Amino acid sequence: MLMSELIIKKRDGGTLTEEEIQFIVEGYTKGEIPDYQMSAFLMAVYFQKMLPIEALHLTLAMTHSGETLDLSGITGVTADKHSTGGVGDKTSLVLVPMLACLGVKMAKMSGRGLGHTGGTLDKLESIPGFCVDIPQERFMEQLEQVGMVIAGQTANLVPADKKMYALRDVTGTVDNIALITSSIMSKKLATGAQTIVLDVKMGKGSFMKTEEDARLLAQSMVKVGNLAGRNTVAVITDMDQPLGNTVGNALEVKEAIATLRGEHNGELLDLCLELGSCILTASGLAAAEEEAKSKLRSTIADGSALQKFAEFVQAQGGDPRVVQDLTLLPEAPVQLDVLAKEAGYIAEMDALEIGKVSLRLGGGRVTKESGIDPSVGVVLLKKIGDVVGEGEAFATVHAANTADAEAAAAQLRDCIFMSAEPVPAKPLVYGIIR
Amino acid sequence: MLMSELIIKKRDGGTLTEEEIQFIVEGYTKGEIPDYQMSAFLMAVYFQKMLPIEALHLTLAMTHSGETLDLSGITGVTADKHSTGGVGDKTSLVLVPMLACLGVKMAKMSGRGLGHTGGTLDKLESIPGFCVDIPQERFMEQLEQVGMVIAGQTANLVPADKKMYALRDVTGTVDNIALITSSIMSKKLATGAQTIVLDVKMGKGSFMKTEEDARLLAQSMVKVGNLAGRNTVAVITDMDQPLGNTVGNALEVKEAIATLRGEHNGELLDLCLELGSCILTASGLAAAEEEAKSKLRSTIADGSALQKFAEFVQAQGGDPRVVQDLTLLPEAPVQLDVLAKEAGYIAEMDALEIGKVSLRLGGGRVTKESGIDPSVGVVLLKKIGDVVGEGEAFATVHAANTADAEAAAAQLRDCIFMSAEPVPAKPLVYGIIR
Repeated sequence: MLMSELIIKKRDGGTLTEEEIQFIVEGYTKGEIPDYQMSAFLMAVYFQKMLPIEALHLTLAMTHSGETLDLSGITGVTADKHSTGGVGDKTSLVLVPMLACLGVKMAKMSGRGLGHTGGTLDKLESIPGFCVDIPQERFMEQLEQVGMVIAGQTANLVPADKKMYALRDVTGTVDNIALITSSIMSKKLATGAQTIVLDVKMGKGSFMKTEEDARLLAQSMVKVGNLAGRNTVAVITDMDQPLGNTVGNALEVKEAIATLRGEHNGELLDLCLELGSCILTASGLAAAEEEAKSKLRSTIADGSALQKFAEFVQAQGGDPRVVQDLTLLPEAPVQLDVLAKEAGYIAEMDALEIGKVSLRLGGGRVTKESGIDPSVGVVLLKKIGDVVGEGEAFATVHAANTADAEAAAAQLRDCIFMSAEPVPAKPLVYGIIR
Repeated sequence: MLMSELIIKKRDGGTLTEEEIQFIVEGYTKGEIPDYQMSAFLMAVYFQKMLPIEALHLTLAMTHSGETLDLSGITGVTADKHSTGGVGDKTSLVLVPMLACLGVKMAKMSGRGLGHTGGTLDKLESIPGFCVDIPQERFMEQLEQVGMVIAGQTANLVPADKKMYALRDVTGTVDNIALITSSIMSKKLATGAQTIVLDVKMGKGSFMKTEEDARLLAQSMVKVGNLAGRNTVAVITDMDQPLGNTVGNALEVKEAIATLRGEHNGELLDLCLELGSCILTASGLAAAEEEAKSKLRSTIADGSALQKFAEFVQAQGGDPRVVQDLTLLPEAPVQLDVLAKEAGYIAEMDALEIGKVSLRLGGGRVTKESGIDPSVGVVLLKKIGDVVGEGEAFATVHAANTADAEAAAAQLRDCIFMSAEPVPAKPLVYGIIR
């Protein structure tokens, strides 16, 4: 088999066989196929696309390019949740303990944040002592005993994706349904969970800007997951505005804990109920959506989800008292309210730009090597559809110093748009793909 | 400027500016832009194409990536001829001396053959003593004194093309009008001639398989050449069957000399008259086609073209007596006639396959490092439209040994197709693009 001929086959609209796709992924991972042929191939895929069967073979070849996690020894139901990435998305911190209380073993390998989206690992590390590097043996033990683990990806998980993603990033070949599908799903398959729920974000703050693109990606991932023998469900959710009311690492942990305490209702809890009920019904732990949501709500009401979160924090070396005492989390020295210049309704929020405000405050990474300040970020006191009085605060900036706070406040004003007329609230869920 | 953004601009159908194209070509030639970004860019160009203005900027940026030849000190008219490559194409050996006799200074830098097409340099080197490596100073002297030079390309002529072509060859990005245009025209512009005639081959033995593709390439090259300030004309000619009656290095030199002697008429001479009249009219040395062709014919009739060829051979170290005594050229030990099994008309010839027969006999290079046997090849006694009797020879194989000759004869039978019905002869010229 010659890589140059496979490039031409895809360039001319051909369908690659399982064997051909394996040849490409294995050859590239081993360094036998050079970057310059792979990037030409990826650009050919960008234009000619891949059939679902090709995306499946690509995903499986990538999954098996390195070590995989074997969860077959874990008792009960195993599940995993993935979000395509958004601003203020702290769903895992609430959803995972809720499900763990209901007997779902949640084995999550997460990433760090880069650019305008935060990473779950960064958020958890704002809890004093919390550790995300867990050896595989302890990973399995904790999953069995606590029922949940959120850890960093091990070095040899899906090496093909690491290499391909780095190449795609600099060759204009990121935006392709089959390539995004294989990148996400290869990691989900390698992590071994039986049930997978995918939170596909759409809108200004996410990768997929339109509902059509989000739906195509969701359908592609669900098809590949199901063909690979996993129960896979995708939920298309709004990311025109940030999720919930906080953007920034410690601030988001506080919002998550408040939600687990039952003190904070709103779209964060709503989204957890949606995603959670998909997992419970897909894995046979609830017969229907209402039963599932009721079970999930009970974990908040009876305090078990909060208790599970504390147990999980302790298992990973963090201070479990944080669930009772939020002052144990880092707090920014400067907090500045951003006041409305005139009365009106919040009409639009640019989630991407709000993410960048938090990034510039020091809450995110500009490059992979950057350090981050866990305390800084933005609290959104109002969301789309809310009414704001003249001189009323619609947001609070948490910053390391006054200059940063004032700069962030000015930037925030440019990405929140008011209307004199009432504006309907944004729907949260646009569809469920099974 | 970021290469990754320029890749995306072209990927999304944008038009690149002169500055952007210069950035890409200079950066790639200097090694600042890596192969993997260039190959993704080239694949994006494959799909999105380039406007003529982009092809011009690409060609000019490539032209200036290395040294260029300055022919401004040469007295009179300078011209160059390029063929897109075919089987049995020995046109330069006849056309260049004819034009040199008429006062056109012909400065030709040629390539060696690779694969099924022979190279003009390889053909000339079958003349004992002939040398193609000429220092630039002697190149200019010979051009002024003899009126013609056919030499190898100097090392630093259009380095961007060398690097880009090697990359395109292994990344499925050869077949694109703008990229082919820039590859050919950058070398023509760098060689400095004022008038350029392009012989664009179409058909089974050439790169462009259809008349439409050949026409698009011809139009693109003519536009770029004229926009760059050179008189440029393209002639679209047949390459469904080999040109003339010989395929193989020394055999083709013999056919060329026979034509210069006035002993051999046919499509080789016809093509020389077509291409030559384009150069004479484009450079103002003839008012119209008929006058031009009559002048060209006179160089054969009065022996001056043959004399010029001898002068040229001597200037480049070869034995000029070859024009009188063809036995000075290498001759294959085995010559085997290929006989028709039944009577009929030659209906089709697969020029590409006939080129490969000569290649396998040892007449061409399989890799860049292969040596070649100048004596071997194929003489086609009949061409498309000719009648052949039962048992009559339609070709002669010239081989190093009997086994090779018999294998070649069997292969030849498979690429020459007979018909019981009369078949019209092939037209030679399909169009002239100015």
